[in-house]
Amino acid sequence: MAQKARVLIDCQDSQGLVYQISKVFYDRKLNIDNNREFVDKEKNKFFMRSVISGDFVIDEIKEALTLALPNDATIRIIEPKSKKIILMATKESHCLGDILIRWASNELEANIEAVISNHNDLKELTNRFNIPFIHIGTEDLSREEHEQKVIKVLDTFDFDYIVLAKYMRILSSDFVDYYPKKIINIHHSFLPAFIGANPYKQAHTRGVKIIGATAHYVTSDLDEGPIISQDVISVNHRLEWRDMQRAGRDVEKIVLARALSFVFNDRVFVHGNKTIIF
Amino acid sequence: MAQKARVLIDCQDSQGLVYQISKVFYDRKLNIDNNREFVDKEKNKFFMRSVISGDFVIDEIKEALTLALPNDATIRIIEPKSKKIILMATKESHCLGDILIRWASNELEANIEAVISNHNDLKELTNRFNIPFIHIGTEDLSREEHEQKVIKVLDTFDFDYIVLAKYMRILSSDFVDYYPKKIINIHHSFLPAFIGANPYKQAHTRGVKIIGATAHYVTSDLDEGPIISQDVISVNHRLEWRDMQRAGRDVEKIVLARALSFVFNDRVFVHGNKTIIF
Amino acid sequence: MAQKARVLIDCQDSQGLVYQISKVFYDRKLNIDNNREFVDKEKNKFFMRSVISGDFVIDEIKEALTLALPNDATIRIIEPKSKKIILMATKESHCLGDILIRWASNELEANIEAVISNHNDLKELTNRFNIPFIHIGTEDLSREEHEQKVIKVLDTFDFDYIVLAKYMRILSSDFVDYYPKKIINIHHSFLPAFIGANPYKQAHTRGVKIIGATAHYVTSDLDEGPIISQDVISVNHRLEWRDMQRAGRDVEKIVLARALSFVFNDRVFVHGNKTIIF
Amino acid sequence: MAQKARVLIDCQDSQGLVYQISKVFYDRKLNIDNNREFVDKEKNKFFMRSVISGDFVIDEIKEALTLALPNDATIRIIEPKSKKIILMATKESHCLGDILIRWASNELEANIEAVISNHNDLKELTNRFNIPFIHIGTEDLSREEHEQKVIKVLDTFDFDYIVLAKYMRILSSDFVDYYPKKIINIHHSFLPAFIGANPYKQAHTRGVKIIGATAHYVTSDLDEGPIISQDVISVNHRLEWRDMQRAGRDVEKIVLARALSFVFNDRVFVHGNKTIIF
Repeated sequence: MAQKARVLIDCQDSQGLVYQISKVFYDRKLNIDNNREFVDKEKNKFFMRSVISGDFVIDEIKEALTLALPNDATIRIIEPKSKKIILMATKESHCLGDILIRWASNELEANIEAVISNHNDLKELTNRFNIPFIHIGTEDLSREEHEQKVIKVLDTFDFDYIVLAKYMRILSSDFVDYYPKKIINIHHSFLPAFIGANPYKQAHTRGVKIIGATAHYVTSDLDEGPIISQDVISVNHRLEWRDMQRAGRDVEKIVLARALSFVFNDRVFVHGNKTIIF
Repeated sequence: MAQKARVLIDCQDSQGLVYQISKVFYDRKLNIDNNREFVDKEKNKFFMRSVISGDFVIDEIKEALTLALPNDATIRIIEPKSKKIILMATKESHCLGDILIRWASNELEANIEAVISNHNDLKELTNRFNIPFIHIGTEDLSREEHEQKVIKVLDTFDFDYIVLAKYMRILSSDFVDYYPKKIINIHHSFLPAFIGANPYKQAHTRGVKIIGATAHYVTSDLDEGPIISQDVISVNHRLEWRDMQRAGRDVEKIVLARALSFVFNDRVFVHGNKTIIF
Repeated sequence: MAQKARVLIDCQDSQGLVYQISKVFYDRKLNIDNNREFVDKEKNKFFMRSVISGDFVIDEIKEALTLALPNDATIRIIEPKSKKIILMATKESHCLGDILIRWASNELEANIEAVISNHNDLKELTNRFNIPFIHIGTEDLSREEHEQKVIKVLDTFDFDYIVLAKYMRILSSDFVDYYPKKIINIHHSFLPAFIGANPYKQAHTRGVKIIGATAHYVTSDLDEGPIISQDVISVNHRLEWRDMQRAGRDVEKIVLARALSFVFNDRVFVHGNKTIIF
Repeated sequence: MAQKARVLIDCQDSQGLVYQISKVFYDRKLNIDNNREFVDKEKNKFFMRSVISGDFVIDEIKEALTLALPNDATIRIIEPKSKKIILMATKESHCLGDILIRWASNELEANIEAVISNHNDLKELTNRFNIPFIHIGTEDLSREEHEQKVIKVLDTFDFDYIVLAKYMRILSSDFVDYYPKKIINIHHSFLPAFIGANPYKQAHTRGVKIIGATAHYVTSDLDEGPIISQDVISVNHRLEWRDMQRAGRDVEKIVLARALSFVFNDRVFVHGNKTIIF
């Protein structure tokens, strides 16, 4: 039976890259099921994602590609399989609930190892799905102390990504740097509009006619990480800010789910402060 | 033949306003073709727009409503007719062109009295429609001097609104205050994201997945006036900022046209820094 | 403490209706928290929905309105409270799961009395929320016999609405007529496009660039009932029909949830084969 | 200075196609500025569009590709230049006007050779842009006779595409077959919903909550040709069908413009009754 793998390459752009890469596949009689390239001309950078199938040994292909490509090339060859994730949440249930339902329906493309929360509100919901719920309260703890406790718990798990499903606590740079490109957040505004606290209240005060949500990688710059997915809905003067919050929930959960699907399928390159999504 | 008028009322909210207003119409055997109300509970303010038809004298109705309503009530009774507008533009043709086509097709609900520009680029396009094009260059002029020249020209016209159809010069507070609630602008971003210069470049740098446009009343706070209409389109990593600019043009012109239609039909209340659109 | 009620009126249009209705409220010193009217000029029909608060007896107001309004008027005065619903589903979990999560988060504005299904696939999910799951298999049963069994079960419950959350069996006219304006369905296409079986396959075959979903009241005309809510998403040539189905799930569940929110808040008038939503 | 060309290839799918094609480019030291591939697995068909730059002779590359690729391969190498188009329209000005403005602003990527119409209404608008307007009335003519007159006029022009910018007459199969893959139409509904006459009236009667527009290649099956672009807007019960028509105009013109941009940039493959757009 044929194997499958996702090959993700990025390097300085130069002539012949597609040729060199496809030659490696061709010489091994591999099928290319899917192929996407992009060149950032401003930065002179090449990106390619191929889904290959056939009979191959990953290390051998990696070696061949390394030989064929410039020295600066980053080459990742990933077998398609369920990711392992940790969810972090606070009190709101819509994003967590949506992910739990997808998981229970085998549509998540990831396994939820645990839910960590600074509150107890979501324990019952999580337990309905027999997933470990770990409460790490913040009382009497400095931000650093709390994060150390979280890291200690995280260390007991093997995971690919941390998903902040409405985790309403700011993470320190130290924490974020500890898990580079591994933390995905849903922000309840159409970034970069309404950075910071209570974006729906801000949106209401500003009188906007559209509100939105943004899923992004978390970096040490708050609300400034590479954006993966965004969407919006129309609002009008009849909505008070709590109505906007309510209406926004559906956007938030769908935007987050879409972003997770991109990430779990290895379709995302992080490129400086941006993403390239194939 | 029955007359028609748009009655716009706003005042402090209190019990019985709809009753008092509809009584004035009922006592005069007028038809209500359309009726919309809104109460801003936070500010305790009542808004109503009725389209009435029948046999009436505007001043008489206004007097009756004034008697029936609280002292703070603002009552406007407007006969539906084409507004008179002045367009201001700079070099880009898409918004101006879209308005000209609507005008030439009798779909604008306004008459274009003149196009004023700080450049000559749009003269040919304007002249195709036999509309006066007035070039007021900025060379060797301070902002104040330039604006004085513009005001001098504007003074020679009778008009209801100034429409900034991609007029790429910042207007001073003095100018703006001279035409309160009379200037409508199209901003090439989804406000409040990307305030200021070259929003498409900013959007590209930030790596957003959606871009937009905003039509708003101009106040002395740059890019902060009451929003009338907004819309967005999806973008991705393949678009350079000039591609975003190109893609954004269609959103800009449609959002502006939609806002103008609201305004020209007297469907907009300006309420603090927001709009209520019926 | 002030009572609240939703007053829904529809009748032949004539002069003075708003006046007559608001007079009833005014005479009783009631507040109008929200008021919306619409006149279908083609059919000469008037619709109004008011949310009133104050001190009142529903029957007394109903009587007063009956006296004040034309004979053909339909007057409903509804106290805002949770509706009772029965869910019917088949195998797909996304709509059912979404409703369950909203219910568990107190966001549904309805209580789920039971889930009825022609299959057993969703039993586990339903049981996670301790909601009765009733399996009524179709084996060896005619459509009529099966529906009789369903009706027998339904008769044991007190409910306001039946929600078909991807119930993939056609209901007979007899069944539908038994529950007039009480059955709400989510159809997995942008009606009236792709009526009938497997709309995603049809959409794929036709090569459309946008797919959608439609929530509607069920009438005896299959896929022809009054539409409550619709939404769409973009697709492209890269999606096979199963990808479209997957992408469509998120639209389906959001469209259904939006429709249910309208219905449960008594914001919907059914007017011939259309809806008026305030 | 480097030349540029768009290379469009489609053929039966097989192993090594990307390799074979990129080898041809690599051997000639050409740059690939942009590269997109797609495999229709169901039909086992491969599609690729490359934008190449460098020093080359088109015929030589075509020959090399022909040798490298399977016999059934269709290879098109197109120099990027303005297309030549004929517009056909009837009475409505919004699509024609939008195209004229883009043309006058050098944003159309095509030159308008002439406007042909069965009515005289759009003569004035066309003449504002000094473009030949040719009126071919239908009075006393059979469909065949009228079309023969149109073909006779078309024969006097050299053109790449006929754009039906709201040409409200059905074209016969004979006419359509005479210009295969050369006629682009804008249909005023979200196909396949509301095929046929007056889709807005149909949409109003059906009570839909969203209306749309579809740009497609014209084939002898009315309203059934390959779809290039679609978009929608929300509507509600307050819109009469003429309001829907008015609201729909903006969608129609934007959808048509988007489709034309795809076509004029040679980004579209017609594949059976579908399009692949790179």
